[in-house]
Amino acid sequence: MATDTGEAGAQPSIAVLVGGVGGARFLQGVRELLPEANISAIVNVGDDVWMHGLRICPDLDTCMYTLGGGIDTERGWGRQGETWHAKEELAKYHAQPDWFGLGDRDIATHLVRSEMLRAGYPLSAVTEALCNRWQPGVKLLPATDDRCETHVVISEPDNPGERRAIHFQEWWVRYRATVETHGFVTIGADQAKPAPGVTEIIESADAVLLAPSNPVVSIGAILAVPGIRGALRTTSASVVGLSPVIDGKALRGMADECLSVLGVETSAEAIGRHFGARSDTGILDGWLVHSTDTAQVPGVEVRSVPLLMSDPAATAEMVREALDIAGVKP
Amino acid sequence: MATDTGEAGAQPSIAVLVGGVGGARFLQGVRELLPEANISAIVNVGDDVWMHGLRICPDLDTCMYTLGGGIDTERGWGRQGETWHAKEELAKYHAQPDWFGLGDRDIATHLVRSEMLRAGYPLSAVTEALCNRWQPGVKLLPATDDRCETHVVISEPDNPGERRAIHFQEWWVRYRATVETHGFVTIGADQAKPAPGVTEIIESADAVLLAPSNPVVSIGAILAVPGIRGALRTTSASVVGLSPVIDGKALRGMADECLSVLGVETSAEAIGRHFGARSDTGILDGWLVHSTDTAQVPGVEVRSVPLLMSDPAATAEMVREALDIAGVKP
Repeated sequence: MATDTGEAGAQPSIAVLVGGVGGARFLQGVRELLPEANISAIVNVGDDVWMHGLRICPDLDTCMYTLGGGIDTERGWGRQGETWHAKEELAKYHAQPDWFGLGDRDIATHLVRSEMLRAGYPLSAVTEALCNRWQPGVKLLPATDDRCETHVVISEPDNPGERRAIHFQEWWVRYRATVETHGFVTIGADQAKPAPGVTEIIESADAVLLAPSNPVVSIGAILAVPGIRGALRTTSASVVGLSPVIDGKALRGMADECLSVLGVETSAEAIGRHFGARSDTGILDGWLVHSTDTAQVPGVEVRSVPLLMSDPAATAEMVREALDIAGVKP
Repeated sequence: MATDTGEAGAQPSIAVLVGGVGGARFLQGVRELLPEANISAIVNVGDDVWMHGLRICPDLDTCMYTLGGGIDTERGWGRQGETWHAKEELAKYHAQPDWFGLGDRDIATHLVRSEMLRAGYPLSAVTEALCNRWQPGVKLLPATDDRCETHVVISEPDNPGERRAIHFQEWWVRYRATVETHGFVTIGADQAKPAPGVTEIIESADAVLLAPSNPVVSIGAILAVPGIRGALRTTSASVVGLSPVIDGKALRGMADECLSVLGVETSAEAIGRHFGARSDTGILDGWLVHSTDTAQVPGVEVRSVPLLMSDPAATAEMVREALDIAGVKP
């Protein structure tokens, strides 16, 4: 399924499905390996939320700040040199929600975005405008311009007999995924369309990679946008995923908690099987798992290689392996 | 016209028309003199503006922060301990306007206000909610809940043959009132109504005071709201104004520039005559001018007393004199 990238000088087109922190670091590796390639990131927007009248897009911003050199590298999200004065003051007004990390520098991004959205620009156009400043070197595309938000059905913490759905951010940031959880629902998925260019980029790519992001609420939320799974199944490019599991454990975020809601074990093999083979009803041609993990996924080429994204150079080696499965030589 | 405040223990009701910095300091004096009184401030909203999707109400906020102990006393506006990170970042996005002092702490106030306004609450209700935190000790009422914004007709700086109207904030903050100016227009005044309670408070007050605020763009902009001038003319309380001129000069802001647009001289007498006597077609019963100024305003009782608001105690003495004209004894 590999596309020959043709004559010398032609650069491959790589499409990458990504979430937030892990996805951003993975994109650094893709850019490191292929500085001249056409790299397009299809970014999860299931975490997006309106708060205090601001539209907040955590994964888009994490990718933009990371690739643009503005990220707080310690935290992995938000701006370096950040202050929290507006947040402190919002709390003094008892403004809800009070549990979200809304930094003063970060607010400027949300203000520009929210004003453009209210003026009628779609999120993809807003993202392009914001990227004029950050020059991420990768085209960042929201999976959809429509509202397609991940909500979580939980037992009411103070009254376990009651169930209600809360926004993913509340589940993740406020409750740290520690409340009894029954399922995920994607609000708006029935009416959402892929953002302009998303399916075309997948269809015309030389390789499609799934970053080692959360398989449920990052990659899964992208796949919840009608049309994207179909494009992955019909593209002539190979689709290669990278396991977010290292040595049997989810390295970042709360993949464990998310997977268990779906009844999927936290293992490289279980996640690979959850995505499934394109030759069956799934989306994978290849699946990279960490050196100390193993996986058998019927119909999918599996390789064990180091998957620690300790720096862009190490990550670039992971990308090289994934592209090798896809038949694309950097 | 004085109302007897009646039996011992009854506290007077004082209505005060105010602008920003000067108005806020004047209110401190009223509160200092009459800590138990019912003090209502009818606050100019002609300066209010949408910027970056935030509704900014400079005079309401200056009054609220000053009376609530949150003001930067050096600058006279904005929050103490303020930082400017969101503003710096907005500039890096080339977001316009870039000339407005939007502080990080201040933004929280604008976020709460803007979200409530978008949810349908009127500005008066929003102001009351914000004041739950600040406890200013004075009821702060916007002159109107409707848009009633002061715009300024100027000669285009780069092309003096062209005229255009700009928002007052742009004229004041960006151009420091240094562009050729032809007039003020109050956008929305034809459809604006006084905020709930405003005319009733004027009508039932024991005294109505006009703070020594800008007579054109603060007091004048309040009077531009249909119904307020009428209430001032028909209230049974006396209406006493305080001159913003000290020793022949406007002490604060750009009253000079504003008055000259209207062809009014910057003098205590000219401003007093500009407001005029209630017994004629104006709004004043009394007019306090500074010790070194004099004024003859037909039909108006004029007194010369120190009008420097150097601290709340000195300001309280100004208030005592004004109330004395109105026949109200603290």
